[in-house]
Amino acid sequence: MITIAVDAMGGDHAPQAVVSGCLEALKAFDDISLILCGPESEIKALLPQDASRIEVLDAPEVITNHEHPTTAIRRKTNSSLVRAMDLVKQGKAQAVLSAGSTGAVLAGSIFRIGRIRGIERPALATTLPTVKGSPVLLLDCGANVDCKPAYLANFALMGSVYMKGVMEVAQPKVGLINIGAEAEKGNDLTKSAYPLLSESPVNFIGNVEARDVLSGVADVLVCDGFAGNMLIKHTEGMASSMMQMMKESFMSTTRSKIGALLLKPALKSFKKRLDYTEYGGAPLLGVNTVVIKAHGSSNAKAIASAVRQARQAVKGDIVGAIGRELSLMAENE
Amino acid sequence: MITIAVDAMGGDHAPQAVVSGCLEALKAFDDISLILCGPESEIKALLPQDASRIEVLDAPEVITNHEHPTTAIRRKTNSSLVRAMDLVKQGKAQAVLSAGSTGAVLAGSIFRIGRIRGIERPALATTLPTVKGSPVLLLDCGANVDCKPAYLANFALMGSVYMKGVMEVAQPKVGLINIGAEAEKGNDLTKSAYPLLSESPVNFIGNVEARDVLSGVADVLVCDGFAGNMLIKHTEGMASSMMQMMKESFMSTTRSKIGALLLKPALKSFKKRLDYTEYGGAPLLGVNTVVIKAHGSSNAKAIASAVRQARQAVKGDIVGAIGRELSLMAENE
Repeated sequence: MITIAVDAMGGDHAPQAVVSGCLEALKAFDDISLILCGPESEIKALLPQDASRIEVLDAPEVITNHEHPTTAIRRKTNSSLVRAMDLVKQGKAQAVLSAGSTGAVLAGSIFRIGRIRGIERPALATTLPTVKGSPVLLLDCGANVDCKPAYLANFALMGSVYMKGVMEVAQPKVGLINIGAEAEKGNDLTKSAYPLLSESPVNFIGNVEARDVLSGVADVLVCDGFAGNMLIKHTEGMASSMMQMMKESFMSTTRSKIGALLLKPALKSFKKRLDYTEYGGAPLLGVNTVVIKAHGSSNAKAIASAVRQARQAVKGDIVGAIGRELSLMAENE
Repeated sequence: MITIAVDAMGGDHAPQAVVSGCLEALKAFDDISLILCGPESEIKALLPQDASRIEVLDAPEVITNHEHPTTAIRRKTNSSLVRAMDLVKQGKAQAVLSAGSTGAVLAGSIFRIGRIRGIERPALATTLPTVKGSPVLLLDCGANVDCKPAYLANFALMGSVYMKGVMEVAQPKVGLINIGAEAEKGNDLTKSAYPLLSESPVNFIGNVEARDVLSGVADVLVCDGFAGNMLIKHTEGMASSMMQMMKESFMSTTRSKIGALLLKPALKSFKKRLDYTEYGGAPLLGVNTVVIKAHGSSNAKAIASAVRQARQAVKGDIVGAIGRELSLMAENE
């Protein structure tokens, strides 16, 4: 049985969406049990009488997006997020899931759980859809805005382990996000990271330009947290901007309106392909347990996907595998 | 009469596309004359007998994308690009247009023409379409991959002047590309640039997240050349990836195929909105003349748009206006 500690108060639609998503996930998988952390009476009121494999741990405090992450983690020890993290520390759960403040999830992971030995900085990884159908893992997406070249080599290693263990990609192709294909191109960071990645044990395919992020040339793409955050937000914004521009074009004539009506199911399936709720949350890689950060605006479906992802990451022993890869590297040095 | 020096050998489809685009532009505007720089006989063979307001300046050498830009500019003084730049230096033209190597256009502009006094680094600016219909100017798009905070303040000023003079936007709203809305968010560069932009005479609206690049909240967006290059390439790549995913959805059933057929004209108008050839080239701002870098894959229409843009930049006296704004700023300090 895999036990996942859930921050029931994290996210814009908490606790309703979180609880519904958890119940959905319990139906789908019979090898998981969940511990919901949050104000006991409020959470219990949302659970059916006969709910099994799910319990509530009372956590009366809530950490909001408006608080300083580190201070909040230190002071609000009775918050839903801190109590969820402590469950892992106490060995009572193997994974943490939260749709709350990214900064607080990051601070909590570092201060309450700790990093894997040999990892300088944990990274937030996001899965994006590609034209080829297979997803691509982009990291870092915002945990480390300014990076040293060595961090990017860590990201490449962690991303590879994740894609092997969770997404079952045999030899994940790792690309370095850059502004040119040639090795000598880029800014100070990418120019210094390139040789480190070439020497690293990952399957490094070289520089990948931003135009190929969604084309499926790589399984893992590494960059600093500023670039990664920009890329995911631009992907999100552009999808919605393009949809809006397209809608305007489609509503312009009677002919196009009829066409759009006929295309409704196809447009829906297309939208689904771009829908982040299908892909779960962002794993925070490099901490000593499985941590999944779900999108702040997660609905029940997105939470259920994130639970599935947490389960898969525990089954794939991501944390152990990252540690083993690092030991192997250290031995070879 | 405005005279524009054209590098007839720049770009993937040179010289045919360049010459055709120039002839198209001459038809549209009777207040311009063009000097095509390239191998004389080759270029003359592409011109009609009775062509007026267009002449050829013999330039037998060509600078390719595979050469080191600075070396090429220094050695190939008989190249189409260097000869076009020299025409401006000699006062025989008021603008240069090239679809050739970005690095060579940049090196040539700095070494053969020179910067505007007070501008540390010229920047490449790109126009992108927005949901609101009005375009947004993004700079720098790759001339300076690593930037100091002061460069970003220069970019903001130059971008504002350009949007006023060429796009006729009265009070251009300037945003700083960042990974959070609050002033204290970002990496070392954006955190230091924020106060400089706040004090600058531009209409600074604060941080703009990548999800809003195409939403039309700003008229000018500034960032370092790494981020800017990434954003334009990601826009390009995502548009094409989305189109491909959409096409797959549309071709999935008979119903959707009929819908797609009816939508053909609407899809075409939508594609046109995203089409870079409609928007001309990228002005290189901060050099002592108007320099327009057209896309390497420019067709005749894109070249004609770039000529129109060069004409507008000369008429709007962009170079003079940037100089005047800088003097005003210096006086107020």
